[in-house]
Amino acid sequence: MVSPIEPINGKYKGKDIISLDQFSPKDISILFKKTVGMLLIAKNARPSDLLKGNIVTLIFYEPSSRTFGSFVAAVKQLGGSTVEILDPEHFSSVSKGESLEDTIRVFEAYCDVIVLRHPKKGATLKAAQAAGFVPVINAGDGIGEHPTQALLDLYTIYERTKKLDNLIGVLAGDMLNGRTIHSLIRGLSKFNGNKLYLLSPKELRLSREDLSSHMESGKLELVEIESEKDIPKNADFWYWTRVQKERFKSESAYEKVKNRFVLDNKLIKERAGKNTIFMHPLPRVGEILPEVDKNPNAVYLRSEIRNGMYIRMALLALILGKSK
Amino acid sequence: MVSPIEPINGKYKGKDIISLDQFSPKDISILFKKTVGMLLIAKNARPSDLLKGNIVTLIFYEPSSRTFGSFVAAVKQLGGSTVEILDPEHFSSVSKGESLEDTIRVFEAYCDVIVLRHPKKGATLKAAQAAGFVPVINAGDGIGEHPTQALLDLYTIYERTKKLDNLIGVLAGDMLNGRTIHSLIRGLSKFNGNKLYLLSPKELRLSREDLSSHMESGKLELVEIESEKDIPKNADFWYWTRVQKERFKSESAYEKVKNRFVLDNKLIKERAGKNTIFMHPLPRVGEILPEVDKNPNAVYLRSEIRNGMYIRMALLALILGKSK
Amino acid sequence: MVSPIEPINGKYKGKDIISLDQFSPKDISILFKKTVGMLLIAKNARPSDLLKGNIVTLIFYEPSSRTFGSFVAAVKQLGGSTVEILDPEHFSSVSKGESLEDTIRVFEAYCDVIVLRHPKKGATLKAAQAAGFVPVINAGDGIGEHPTQALLDLYTIYERTKKLDNLIGVLAGDMLNGRTIHSLIRGLSKFNGNKLYLLSPKELRLSREDLSSHMESGKLELVEIESEKDIPKNADFWYWTRVQKERFKSESAYEKVKNRFVLDNKLIKERAGKNTIFMHPLPRVGEILPEVDKNPNAVYLRSEIRNGMYIRMALLALILGKSK
Repeated sequence: MVSPIEPINGKYKGKDIISLDQFSPKDISILFKKTVGMLLIAKNARPSDLLKGNIVTLIFYEPSSRTFGSFVAAVKQLGGSTVEILDPEHFSSVSKGESLEDTIRVFEAYCDVIVLRHPKKGATLKAAQAAGFVPVINAGDGIGEHPTQALLDLYTIYERTKKLDNLIGVLAGDMLNGRTIHSLIRGLSKFNGNKLYLLSPKELRLSREDLSSHMESGKLELVEIESEKDIPKNADFWYWTRVQKERFKSESAYEKVKNRFVLDNKLIKERAGKNTIFMHPLPRVGEILPEVDKNPNAVYLRSEIRNGMYIRMALLALILGKSK
Repeated sequence: MVSPIEPINGKYKGKDIISLDQFSPKDISILFKKTVGMLLIAKNARPSDLLKGNIVTLIFYEPSSRTFGSFVAAVKQLGGSTVEILDPEHFSSVSKGESLEDTIRVFEAYCDVIVLRHPKKGATLKAAQAAGFVPVINAGDGIGEHPTQALLDLYTIYERTKKLDNLIGVLAGDMLNGRTIHSLIRGLSKFNGNKLYLLSPKELRLSREDLSSHMESGKLELVEIESEKDIPKNADFWYWTRVQKERFKSESAYEKVKNRFVLDNKLIKERAGKNTIFMHPLPRVGEILPEVDKNPNAVYLRSEIRNGMYIRMALLALILGKSK
Repeated sequence: MVSPIEPINGKYKGKDIISLDQFSPKDISILFKKTVGMLLIAKNARPSDLLKGNIVTLIFYEPSSRTFGSFVAAVKQLGGSTVEILDPEHFSSVSKGESLEDTIRVFEAYCDVIVLRHPKKGATLKAAQAAGFVPVINAGDGIGEHPTQALLDLYTIYERTKKLDNLIGVLAGDMLNGRTIHSLIRGLSKFNGNKLYLLSPKELRLSREDLSSHMESGKLELVEIESEKDIPKNADFWYWTRVQKERFKSESAYEKVKNRFVLDNKLIKERAGKNTIFMHPLPRVGEILPEVDKNPNAVYLRSEIRNGMYIRMALLALILGKSK
């Protein structure tokens, strides 16, 4: 569409969704209200015909079963249809040397929205600029952005605490490389009075540049901590993440830090508040023990996953101008 | 769901379908009545909206185009929607080390039923135990079970003979390893007075343990034969199977037995009765000649395939509590 | 179905669509009228329920994201459902040695039409002969045919010029091997008074046999040219094609001819008429410069792609006997 990093500015219809930067606090509020409506449709009002007759094309240049499944389910919960193109680089046209721009211009002829996953940062912006008729939604572009993931994290916090300002949060894991960590910090920096404790091994701290750029907004307070003992007892949420093996040069460097911070019942008993919620973007590989799964404040398995679908339903409905 | 190998016991709604053992003769009768209704819908009453608004997620850890296509078609014949996840082990979350349990808990958030194909015996039971909200249907778990395949074989016999007891059947091929053979024997052992002739090379006979365990029920009579000459002339059905190459250590061992018993028009003329039906779970690779395909009693290509879809339609409708 | 290369002869319902040879000028006219109706549905009358309750099975033995996406979108634009089987040779049944005929007979049990893509010439005819109950549509069989591609090219010319006879056209690229070139020539030879200029390097000229067989009909005039200077100024359309790298033995032989003829604004200014339209079957790899994309007569990106979907919608509707 015309201007892919154009702010939403209260008007979702026809917009590309490429970056969290497009969303003002007001835009987030509109989206979250819509999301509540979607939750009600998914739970009580199926079959919905809100997207009946609409076609959403998913083009996934790299596999991501979760994001893929979530978007497909979002479309179908609302009675829409999908065209699913997986791994087009091994499909003939792309392998014959076709540009991303031409591929997008072909597929937009068949549908009303394109959902694009691509391994290269910036690819979805390029795609949105190429598309002349339909909006493009970024479903993750490498080390770039994955805006619907960030929005579902914000929504999950909002759903439980009823606010997005004056929050106290703990983020644990890899501050240096974690895309979801960076997105969450950026999302919360849009609101006033939030204070985040960043728990990580020294090797995986936020870079100095990232730290100062986040702090500059003046809206956010960041506190780096190195031990579970420094977790404040009154946090609204804990956001645990996997240390990503693929970021390390050697197995031993990875082994050294991978499960430095494990979320288990003991830690909850010692440091969590009564209403602290426990989040994780998944997949997990040991940094949250299964014993935590049954805790009513553990939202990582079901609430976050479902919220991801509801947020995507809301976004599709808004972009397609479905006001119901 | 709560108790995955819980017997159906007349109540299908919300049940996991993991094993043929869950089905009593009464349960099979309920299912077969429903199946007749499904056949009528597929033939005369489309579009059906019975599953409109329902989402069925198919997760196939190994490819099986036939079972996959049959389940997808079953859902769509009834107006439902699918989320299709193929080969998730090469999808990012699983390849990053996620457990089967977490994967299932993620995908159940998006749908009403999960249909799971997995190469490991017992995986679908594990999955059903992990799922907290939606039922899981076993679409084949390695050398374990494939209950809908067994049920469609029983239904095909029932459709033609109007009974599941006091039958005379011939099973040919690999008694030792054939999963469909074992399932059919187990299915028929639920009913009284059935007598099965097992035609196989010596090397591929039923194991002594299997033989005695089947006989113990006291309901079933098994007769091992080694030559076509011993086929009784009044059999209700012949169930031919492929000798599976992948079971043999050497090419020559396989070649020795692969087409020992070939179903052709000559054999039919010599040993089949007027109403004997000819079954095969497919694929075939030479053990039934194409000349047999036009025989009105050859049910392996069309009736069995269609019955597979009808049985799956019926099972989905029952599990989702659709009483129409 | 019964007779797979049976001419359409005004009666589409239930017919296999294997070859352009099945279509008379009258059949093409019926199809194009229907196509206009489909365009109106796609643009203004969604959701359409024309194919509601119908199931179309797509079996793609080789990847082709464009044709696949176009057919899937065509089905869904009309409210139908799909069963999508990609790469069945790596799916178990086929890899276990099943014949194409058995595979088709299995999948036809689940659906109302089969759309088949196969790398081997003649495979779709074989499939149509095997299918006993549902029609088969050829979505490309190797160096054989791809009738819906040819029809969408004809339709695009018709849409702009309102005729299919007395046309002047320029075809550029690989006359020797290009399947779309051959199809377009065959398509236009059904009508009177067409004159085609074939612009290609000497090495890639039409074979003498092909040339004389096309000329024999007496309806078509073919003129071989070697330089852009010989392009007539009053052409109705230019049909540019990619020189296919995979046809050449050596990289250097390919490099020598690959972009001999490049369609750019300069060439348009020098040789095109005011209403000449610019076509290309895509993908392109340099033989049309992006600067041409915005020319209102450049129909290769959007019109041709959309027309492909409309033609497939029309064909599906006609074959399934939907007269609306």
